[in-house]
Amino acid sequence: MISTNPKSISIERAEILSYLKKLRNEIRTAFESFEKIHRFSVTPWDYKHEGGGEMSVLRGDVFEKAAVNFSAVGGPEFPMGDAEGPFFATGVSLITHMKNPYAPTVHMNLRYIEADGKTWFGGGYDLTPMGFPFEEDKIHFHNVAEKATGSLYPQFSEAATKYFFIPHRNKERGQGGLFFDHYNTGDQNKDFALLKKIGDTFLKSYLPIVEKRIHTPYTPNEKEIQKKARAHYVEFNLLYDRGTKFGFQSGGNPEAILCSMPPEASW
Amino acid sequence: MISTNPKSISIERAEILSYLKKLRNEIRTAFESFEKIHRFSVTPWDYKHEGGGEMSVLRGDVFEKAAVNFSAVGGPEFPMGDAEGPFFATGVSLITHMKNPYAPTVHMNLRYIEADGKTWFGGGYDLTPMGFPFEEDKIHFHNVAEKATGSLYPQFSEAATKYFFIPHRNKERGQGGLFFDHYNTGDQNKDFALLKKIGDTFLKSYLPIVEKRIHTPYTPNEKEIQKKARAHYVEFNLLYDRGTKFGFQSGGNPEAILCSMPPEASW
Repeated sequence: MISTNPKSISIERAEILSYLKKLRNEIRTAFESFEKIHRFSVTPWDYKHEGGGEMSVLRGDVFEKAAVNFSAVGGPEFPMGDAEGPFFATGVSLITHMKNPYAPTVHMNLRYIEADGKTWFGGGYDLTPMGFPFEEDKIHFHNVAEKATGSLYPQFSEAATKYFFIPHRNKERGQGGLFFDHYNTGDQNKDFALLKKIGDTFLKSYLPIVEKRIHTPYTPNEKEIQKKARAHYVEFNLLYDRGTKFGFQSGGNPEAILCSMPPEASW
Repeated sequence: MISTNPKSISIERAEILSYLKKLRNEIRTAFESFEKIHRFSVTPWDYKHEGGGEMSVLRGDVFEKAAVNFSAVGGPEFPMGDAEGPFFATGVSLITHMKNPYAPTVHMNLRYIEADGKTWFGGGYDLTPMGFPFEEDKIHFHNVAEKATGSLYPQFSEAATKYFFIPHRNKERGQGGLFFDHYNTGDQNKDFALLKKIGDTFLKSYLPIVEKRIHTPYTPNEKEIQKKARAHYVEFNLLYDRGTKFGFQSGGNPEAILCSMPPEASW
């Protein structure tokens, strides 16, 4: 068992797990509604210590590749530098890579962690055009993000801009969004409510953009531009992303960690 | 100027630079001889402190992408953990990504470094089939490597097997070859002669394999298998490779550091 201070925990883990799984299911259903034939393929995996996860991958005609992962794992030693000792971590994370180069990639992660006798939430969502950015898409995405987070929006949005930055290319990965980590106000009910607000608005932030962009005609050359932009996404994920690092350092399933990688990338 | 102990230096830097450039030119010419139309495109770049480099990229019909880099840079602080203070580093590095999935990728690096009042050579060459390994190619490649290094072969070959390993996939990157680092026997003439032997045998190790494999017919599905294998190469280079880390940590040109990335990869 993971040792955590019972006084600081008001929300049952079960409630968080249940919310994350429900959200995961809603997102999968929503993505599948764009596809005529293709459905998510689900692969469960076991963690070397306790728990495991479910990796879901859709390879479709609209979603060239979408990966939605759920995991709930525990172990004797927190794998990152910012806490130590036994830990429990659960989360949903997803990435889309769209067939149409005019449709941007989105990434969402919502996580809950217990370690060091503390608990916290983290995650966010962010938008990455792959070669063809639209200011109106960015505005819509950020409007939804702002409604979800209210007075926290400036802080979470600035954190996303800082985090999703590719140092060696000296540019932002995409158009930003929300990012937060180690979030704990002392009122876990309130913090969980915030997580749910972010989770519940995710589809509203992204699907209208998908609907708007997937019918735009494109040329092979524009597809190639998309693949080159995806290469920068690969570089970010492998060189800098904390989620990828957490995955490898915790001995997670490499297929699940890397299922966010694009179907095709060009350098 | 870089401060180095003049007593320990018997080979002029100029002689090393001249050898590396000559080798680079020979390799480019040899690769181009397989191409009817396509030629290397050469881009010079300046390092933020002293020196710079030349990135050469060939995108051809046989060599889908070959990158041959030369660099000679110096600065006030060695960018890796294994030495400190002012440094000088020069090297040639190359990677090939072949159009035909039956033709393997090769990587070669030869470098000379001055730092911490010491000088050393490092590098090697290694072979990576992209989905279609042939034992006879591995044997030929290693035979040439063994002839080049003699009694050092077991040590250098074992080092390559250890270094070119992908931990999260728990497998070797390819079929191995030679790897050495911090090489300094105290006799710089002898050490430089070894470097030259390795450099001079590179084309003999690789070109017969290229000649044998580039005419094999292949299907789109076999091409896709190659692209998936290339994805593991990308993972290795971005997650583990010291050369990539050295490049980024020294503030090198990102285009030159990443020009080794495959033209197309799939996940």
